[in-house]
Amino acid sequence: MAGLVLEGIIAYPVTPFAPGEAGGVDTAALTTLVDRLIDAGCHAIAPLGSTGESAYLDDQEWYTTAEAALAAVARRVPAVVGVADLTTRNAVRRARFAEQAGADAVMVLPQSYWKLDEREVVRHFTAVADAVSVPVMIYNNPATSGIDLSPELMVSLVGQVENITMVKESSGDVQRMHRLAQLTDGELPFYNGSNPLALEAFAAGAAGWCTAAPCLIPGPVLALHRAVRDGDLDAAREVFYRQLPVLEFILRGGLPTTVKAGLALLGLDAGTPRRPLLPLDEPGTARLAELLAATA
Amino acid sequence: MAGLVLEGIIAYPVTPFAPGEAGGVDTAALTTLVDRLIDAGCHAIAPLGSTGESAYLDDQEWYTTAEAALAAVARRVPAVVGVADLTTRNAVRRARFAEQAGADAVMVLPQSYWKLDEREVVRHFTAVADAVSVPVMIYNNPATSGIDLSPELMVSLVGQVENITMVKESSGDVQRMHRLAQLTDGELPFYNGSNPLALEAFAAGAAGWCTAAPCLIPGPVLALHRAVRDGDLDAAREVFYRQLPVLEFILRGGLPTTVKAGLALLGLDAGTPRRPLLPLDEPGTARLAELLAATA
Amino acid sequence: MAGLVLEGIIAYPVTPFAPGEAGGVDTAALTTLVDRLIDAGCHAIAPLGSTGESAYLDDQEWYTTAEAALAAVARRVPAVVGVADLTTRNAVRRARFAEQAGADAVMVLPQSYWKLDEREVVRHFTAVADAVSVPVMIYNNPATSGIDLSPELMVSLVGQVENITMVKESSGDVQRMHRLAQLTDGELPFYNGSNPLALEAFAAGAAGWCTAAPCLIPGPVLALHRAVRDGDLDAAREVFYRQLPVLEFILRGGLPTTVKAGLALLGLDAGTPRRPLLPLDEPGTARLAELLAATA
Amino acid sequence: MAGLVLEGIIAYPVTPFAPGEAGGVDTAALTTLVDRLIDAGCHAIAPLGSTGESAYLDDQEWYTTAEAALAAVARRVPAVVGVADLTTRNAVRRARFAEQAGADAVMVLPQSYWKLDEREVVRHFTAVADAVSVPVMIYNNPATSGIDLSPELMVSLVGQVENITMVKESSGDVQRMHRLAQLTDGELPFYNGSNPLALEAFAAGAAGWCTAAPCLIPGPVLALHRAVRDGDLDAAREVFYRQLPVLEFILRGGLPTTVKAGLALLGLDAGTPRRPLLPLDEPGTARLAELLAATA
Repeated sequence: MAGLVLEGIIAYPVTPFAPGEAGGVDTAALTTLVDRLIDAGCHAIAPLGSTGESAYLDDQEWYTTAEAALAAVARRVPAVVGVADLTTRNAVRRARFAEQAGADAVMVLPQSYWKLDEREVVRHFTAVADAVSVPVMIYNNPATSGIDLSPELMVSLVGQVENITMVKESSGDVQRMHRLAQLTDGELPFYNGSNPLALEAFAAGAAGWCTAAPCLIPGPVLALHRAVRDGDLDAAREVFYRQLPVLEFILRGGLPTTVKAGLALLGLDAGTPRRPLLPLDEPGTARLAELLAATA
Repeated sequence: MAGLVLEGIIAYPVTPFAPGEAGGVDTAALTTLVDRLIDAGCHAIAPLGSTGESAYLDDQEWYTTAEAALAAVARRVPAVVGVADLTTRNAVRRARFAEQAGADAVMVLPQSYWKLDEREVVRHFTAVADAVSVPVMIYNNPATSGIDLSPELMVSLVGQVENITMVKESSGDVQRMHRLAQLTDGELPFYNGSNPLALEAFAAGAAGWCTAAPCLIPGPVLALHRAVRDGDLDAAREVFYRQLPVLEFILRGGLPTTVKAGLALLGLDAGTPRRPLLPLDEPGTARLAELLAATA
Repeated sequence: MAGLVLEGIIAYPVTPFAPGEAGGVDTAALTTLVDRLIDAGCHAIAPLGSTGESAYLDDQEWYTTAEAALAAVARRVPAVVGVADLTTRNAVRRARFAEQAGADAVMVLPQSYWKLDEREVVRHFTAVADAVSVPVMIYNNPATSGIDLSPELMVSLVGQVENITMVKESSGDVQRMHRLAQLTDGELPFYNGSNPLALEAFAAGAAGWCTAAPCLIPGPVLALHRAVRDGDLDAAREVFYRQLPVLEFILRGGLPTTVKAGLALLGLDAGTPRRPLLPLDEPGTARLAELLAATA
Repeated sequence: MAGLVLEGIIAYPVTPFAPGEAGGVDTAALTTLVDRLIDAGCHAIAPLGSTGESAYLDDQEWYTTAEAALAAVARRVPAVVGVADLTTRNAVRRARFAEQAGADAVMVLPQSYWKLDEREVVRHFTAVADAVSVPVMIYNNPATSGIDLSPELMVSLVGQVENITMVKESSGDVQRMHRLAQLTDGELPFYNGSNPLALEAFAAGAAGWCTAAPCLIPGPVLALHRAVRDGDLDAAREVFYRQLPVLEFILRGGLPTTVKAGLALLGLDAGTPRRPLLPLDEPGTARLAELLAATA
């Protein structure tokens, strides 16, 4: 799949856990969720993203999740596996595992404890990309990773390393997307990872929207993409504002927390997020129920 | 004009100065510029905005500029006069003058030295609005004014004071526009004042674009508005990216500085900005010439 | 006074106003306040600073205040007049007036509406300094001026212009003071303008503390300086923490607002600040009364 | 050691690695380093802090390091083991291990990927503190952990949980220390973790300085503490400015990176930091050599 170009709605499932604080990955629930997302029409599936609590899993849990998700996707749509690790060593190991398990691409987030300089970022991405043959999507998410990748740096990586071919921008700043388009004459496919920017990112030319929202409201999410694809700005605006309260709510409360609460409301028990993350409290759950009812 | 609702391109002329550091307002050049903007099809004219160096003029210069600009507009299109003053006393005086000279609306920016709390902001706006009968546009521009007005506060002002009817958002954050729309069920007309956000602000439902860009590139600016009005997202994106380098350049260099340099390149001598602002340097002017040539 | 080197407590009086919104400068109250500050032992007096509402006065009020303050000081201690103006033209005019009225130094704050680049900052300071023969103190206060002067830029100005000889740092960041000391081998006298940093700025080697606090609590302010001058860290820490609640309160509420309220509590009617600034509300005034009682 | 109160210089060793990217923990080098720090007069030893690359080690490496460091300390001075983990589960496990291996206290940093709300922070700290009987030091370091603990929250934790008894503040903002002192009437021992703030933090009343600098310049570090303890402000300032260039350099370049490079210059091979962290480059190493020569 060297020529893989993702387009449309890239859906991020949560990683369901069995009950109890020690509960492991619930692969049956994950399979059900993946099926729902594909049945709803999502264009790609991305397990082990920020929503998938990738950073909170131990190695064995991570492998289990990757295998189960890829088996559930079963090549019906492209699968992009998230690799977010503090050390290059682990990132390489997980990326290799993902490829061998059938991932069509890996999405790499350079987490940081000590700040990384550009040289260190380049070496990290190069090491991971060199370790696999599938395409690599650079994932910029300063709010969770603690490191902010400039458009210039990301475009430079795309130019230097053959299988780094896509960028996911989650800074929430549409000017970054403008810059990516300008630096590459519109040739680099970029993806929006900031839910409340979905309308504007598409307006700015994003190839896709990376989002956990289809776990809860697949209809409106896909309708926004259709309206944009059809060039119908008024319809896109209408369906965007309709779903915006849900998009804002799930982001503000933390995606694993809120999406798991929403899935329970919709009848799919995905367990609770990993401590120190706590389940959504009662008032929050009641509010989410209202928002889902008003949106669907 | 109680029911004034602006729509489209609200054009901001610079305030031309006669040669020399002591040079006063060049009303002839201002008249020429206003004529050009109206002839190009701009939907409203807004003298004495940030671009108009309102904050740098002494009282007499300010009055001269207001009168000359309003005379030049001659009610062919609505005229919105900017009122940005550190003291409430002066803001009231200037707003009254603008109304008597024929302004259709005033745009009020609450400049700050000492930070203002909400109570102080409300009193300032109320005092200015009470002093006139024309509509008042709230102008939020934290980068120049040093004070950031939340959507909630602005909507509250609109609800409290009858002739406060419009909001101009120049923070550059499209989420503020979403919030304005949500808080008023889309009823409050809001205007975008951040040039590089023009495409996305229209996508988000902005009623207009407040911009100095038509001084230099009226064609592409108006074409963007037309594409949006026609609901043609692909055309809007194309013409936006074409003009974006100019929009970025004129904002980054300071609008009075760059727009005056650009007007000189286009054959209209508008003088230089007021010290401490300096004229655009030679390499900047050369770059601007290139960008204008590539855009027009 | 070419060799003027300020040391110790530089006290900033408010500018008292007569009653009513149109009330002019109350020079009698200003004279009383200046007398109090000098009698208390302050080492210099600085009218027309941020506390003095310099930015809110019209030209005539500003001149009246400068003359009255300088007459009140009557060369008993050095007088430093603040010059904060948006245009270079007005800053030059006010600096010249201050010198002719007897100022021993001028303190220059480069206010901004449009951001200034380094070239513009240098030209502004050079123009003001060239217009007078008294020493110039660079005043860095990004929170009120909207422009942040780097230590490197300020040291460069000191090196380039003969009568620019002092720096007042009000960013609140003690690392800036370290940098000033390092860049000049400790030769450049720098002054702290951030009240809650008074202890640490002295520890870092500040030559003085520019503060409005002596209007309300001259005893503790001067005691802190004495303890530092005597090298007695434990005594300095004790008297600092005793006055810190007042320092924090007056800064948080805006110095003109809170200091005028405090002066009224102490029996000196200095009027209210200029609109849009409002007088301190009742709960705030009650709290200030408690803090003053606990500190004096 | 329920009544443990640390005071003075708490020294943070790096975690030495054997050569090669796969090189494990070099316990012999760690033992040598710990001996040096104690011989120099440091008042406590804190392995597995930010400097110790705690976040980059796998479980087995972490256990090996904790055991080796505690064996090397051999109860000559108190030992504080750092526990920084994304999940509560792992933080509890590591804290328990540290206690069983002989730690006198644990220092807990609540790392974040998804932002934690106050409820989640409280639950995390309570869970770790409940799992051990040794004292817990709260570690606030927003720059590396991505989460900023307010003084109010930290003081609340100290009040709620018996064995949470100390706070390490590494935000670099001395006002946080003022607040800690005010909220507890000076009763809560707080420690400074920001190297360039060492002088001012002691002035503000810090009980100690948590620092990796003694790995390279133990003499000046201990001399600063002695001067402060003796209340000699002038001596403290002198020795602080002498070592400040080294403190700034090692912080700016990342402590594991620069301290390992400095140790090599001093003849102790501690290996290189874990990828993606890269060794200090040649110009940086040359500069560090100069600074060390000028400081020692």
